[in-house]
Amino acid sequence: MDYETPQFFRVMKYASEAEGDVIDMVSGNPDWEPPEALREGLYEYADVDSGQFQYPPSVGLTALREEIAARRGVDRSRVIVTNGAGEANHLAMSGALEAMDGNEIIMVDPVYPYYAGRAGMLGADRTYVPVDEDGHLDAGTVRDLASKETAAIVVNSPNNPMGVTYGGDTIEELVDVAEDCDAVLVSDEVYDHFDYSGKFRSALSVDSPSRIVTNSFSKSMAITGWRVGYAIFPDADRPVPYGDLADAARTRHMLTNVATSRPAQAAVLHALEHTGPEYHEAARDRMEERIDHFTTALDETGAEYTDPEGSFYVMARFPDVGGTLEDVKWLIDEAGVAGMPGEAFGESRADWIRFALVSPRVEEAAQRLDEFFAEGNPR
Amino acid sequence: MDYETPQFFRVMKYASEAEGDVIDMVSGNPDWEPPEALREGLYEYADVDSGQFQYPPSVGLTALREEIAARRGVDRSRVIVTNGAGEANHLAMSGALEAMDGNEIIMVDPVYPYYAGRAGMLGADRTYVPVDEDGHLDAGTVRDLASKETAAIVVNSPNNPMGVTYGGDTIEELVDVAEDCDAVLVSDEVYDHFDYSGKFRSALSVDSPSRIVTNSFSKSMAITGWRVGYAIFPDADRPVPYGDLADAARTRHMLTNVATSRPAQAAVLHALEHTGPEYHEAARDRMEERIDHFTTALDETGAEYTDPEGSFYVMARFPDVGGTLEDVKWLIDEAGVAGMPGEAFGESRADWIRFALVSPRVEEAAQRLDEFFAEGNPR
Repeated sequence: MDYETPQFFRVMKYASEAEGDVIDMVSGNPDWEPPEALREGLYEYADVDSGQFQYPPSVGLTALREEIAARRGVDRSRVIVTNGAGEANHLAMSGALEAMDGNEIIMVDPVYPYYAGRAGMLGADRTYVPVDEDGHLDAGTVRDLASKETAAIVVNSPNNPMGVTYGGDTIEELVDVAEDCDAVLVSDEVYDHFDYSGKFRSALSVDSPSRIVTNSFSKSMAITGWRVGYAIFPDADRPVPYGDLADAARTRHMLTNVATSRPAQAAVLHALEHTGPEYHEAARDRMEERIDHFTTALDETGAEYTDPEGSFYVMARFPDVGGTLEDVKWLIDEAGVAGMPGEAFGESRADWIRFALVSPRVEEAAQRLDEFFAEGNPR
Repeated sequence: MDYETPQFFRVMKYASEAEGDVIDMVSGNPDWEPPEALREGLYEYADVDSGQFQYPPSVGLTALREEIAARRGVDRSRVIVTNGAGEANHLAMSGALEAMDGNEIIMVDPVYPYYAGRAGMLGADRTYVPVDEDGHLDAGTVRDLASKETAAIVVNSPNNPMGVTYGGDTIEELVDVAEDCDAVLVSDEVYDHFDYSGKFRSALSVDSPSRIVTNSFSKSMAITGWRVGYAIFPDADRPVPYGDLADAARTRHMLTNVATSRPAQAAVLHALEHTGPEYHEAARDRMEERIDHFTTALDETGAEYTDPEGSFYVMARFPDVGGTLEDVKWLIDEAGVAGMPGEAFGESRADWIRFALVSPRVEEAAQRLDEFFAEGNPR
C-alpha cells in the first residue's frame, strides 16, 4: 500500500467531477461552526500590538500551554504546542526512533494513513496489528508482536477509521507493553471529545515514562486547517531508560518549524478560555443523531458495519460490494454517495468503505443508500 | 559550538532582567507595523464560512501559490508554502541529503545558528567557510572545499548575521559549484526586501536544476510569529541527476506538518494583493536611517564594523571588547545596549557583536555606545 500519497485527494476529485449530485463523506473535515469565541479571538488578535505578531516561544504561547496543562493535569513543561497533531505525532515517532534501541513502529490495521506514511519516511520497520472482528485492538496481540526491536506503538482512540473507542484496560496494557519493551506508546487522542460509548480513557491517566499523548483542536474546535495541536511528554524526572523525550522534541520542533503560527494559537487560547462544555456536548449530540440515521439505513441495506462508539466514522460493508477505489467510484456514480475505500487504510478492512459523518446531508445520504440497495442486488 | 540551543534566549533573558534600562538589539524581530492589508486580511478571514477553516491544500492555498509564483516568475507547481522559512530550509536541506550521494552540508561562518543546528539534527557532516575580511563569501573557497561528498550549500543573502549582500557573480558561481558536485544550492532570501546596496540577486535568476530558493513573509511583512514561508524547487522536467526534489519535499511537508496554518496564509495572501511597493520602500528607508545613525556612532567609538549592505544587522568589534556571552552581558550592564555575541554564530567573528537594528531606539543606543566609549577605554 502506498501510504505516501493519501487516496483522499483522488476520491474527492472524482466525487467533485462526477456528473450527478454527490454527498461527500470522504474526509474528516467538520461541517459545523467553531466555538464563537474562536472567531472573537481572531478578531482580537488582528488588533493587537504588532509586537505580538513576532516569534512566540518556540514551545508555544505560555498561556496556551498553561491552559492545556491545567486541563490535562500535567506540568506545563511537559507540553509542546505543535503544527497540529500531525507535527505532534511526527515529534513523538521520530523522537522514539531516535531514543530507543529498536527501529520498529507497531500500528493498527486499518491504519490512519499518515502514521504509516510518516513511519516509512522515517525509515522505521512497520508492523501492523489487525483489529478484532468488532474493530477493537487486542492489546494481547500487540504484546505478542512487540519486542526490544519496537521503538513505538502508535494508537488512536477514539479511532479513525474504525469508529471505535478503546477501553481503559487496553490503554493500560499498551503502556505496560511499551514499558516492557523499552518502547513508547504514542496515543493520538484527537477525537477525545467525540466518544459516545463513555469508554474513552486518555493514556495520560496511566502514569508512565513510556507514553506520549498527542492531540489537537482540529476536531474539537472544527478547525482542521488552523494547525494547532500539542504533545504531552513523560515527566523528565522519572527514571527512564532513554534520554528526556521532551527535550529532544523541543529541539526537533525548533529546528523543523521554529514555532507554531501565532494567530491560530492566540485564537485557540481565547476559545479555550471562553467556551463551555455545552459546545462539545452539542457537537457530540449532532454526531450521535447522524450515527443513528446512518446506521438505521445501513440496517435496511443489509450492510455489515462496526458499531460506532467514537470519532466521525462508520466502517461498513455492503453485500457484494468491495472496498477498492473502483467500488467507491461505482457507489459515487450509482448512489451519489462518496466514502473512502477501506483498502486505503490497509488490509484488514480492504473490502469495507469508511463514511465520514461530517456532512449536513448524512440523513439524505442514508436515504440514498437505503433506496439504492432496496432495488435488489445492484451488481 | 552548541547550535542546538540558540543563545538568543539566554541573552534576551539577561537583558530583560538587568537592573537598568536596556535597549534590546538582540533578535531580528521587526519593530514596525505590518502592511495594513494584513490586519484587514485577518479580520476578513475571521468572518469566512467555516468551510474555509478546514484543511487547505497541503502545499498551500492555491491563490497564495499563484501569487508567489507570478511574483517570482516560476510555475505554481514549483512552490510549496511552508511553516516559515524554517520549514522551507528544513525541506530543502533534508531533501538534498536524501537525494544526493554526499552527506556534507557547506555553510558560511558566521552561520545563522538554525542552519547549523538543523544540519546537525539531520546527521550531516558540517563544513564551514569563513567569510572574507569584508564579510562576503568567496565562492572560490566554496569551490575548493566542495566535492562529491557535498549534498547542499546553504547561503543567506542579504546575510544574517554579517549584514552584507552577495553579488550576482557569487550566486552564479555557487549554483555552478552545486551543479559540478551534484549538490544543491539552498538560497535563503528572507531579507530580499532589505538590500541597500542594489546588489541583491536571487538564485532564481540562475536557471538550474541545482538550486532551491527559500523565503518567508516574516521580515518583509513584519510577522515573524505567523510562520508563512515558501520554497521554490527546480523544474521537474529538467534533467537532474537525482529524483524530483519538489515531489520529495511535498511528501515530507505533508507527513511532517500536513499543511501550513490557514489564517496566516489567508491574511498574507490578502496583504500581497493589496500592498504596494511603497510599504517596502518605507521599511527600507527606515532601516537605512538607522544604519546611518548607528554607524556614525560606531565611527565615534573607534569600533570596527562591516559595512551594512542588507538585512537588519550590523557586525561590530569595539576596542578591547570581545564577542562572548560575558562581553555582551558586560555591555548590557555598563552601556545599557544588548547585542548578540559573535561567538553564537561560529568562529570567524567570535570576537564581534551583532546588533539588530529593529528597535525604535537605535538612535538612542548609538548615543549610549558613543558616550560610553568616549569615556576612554572602559576596561
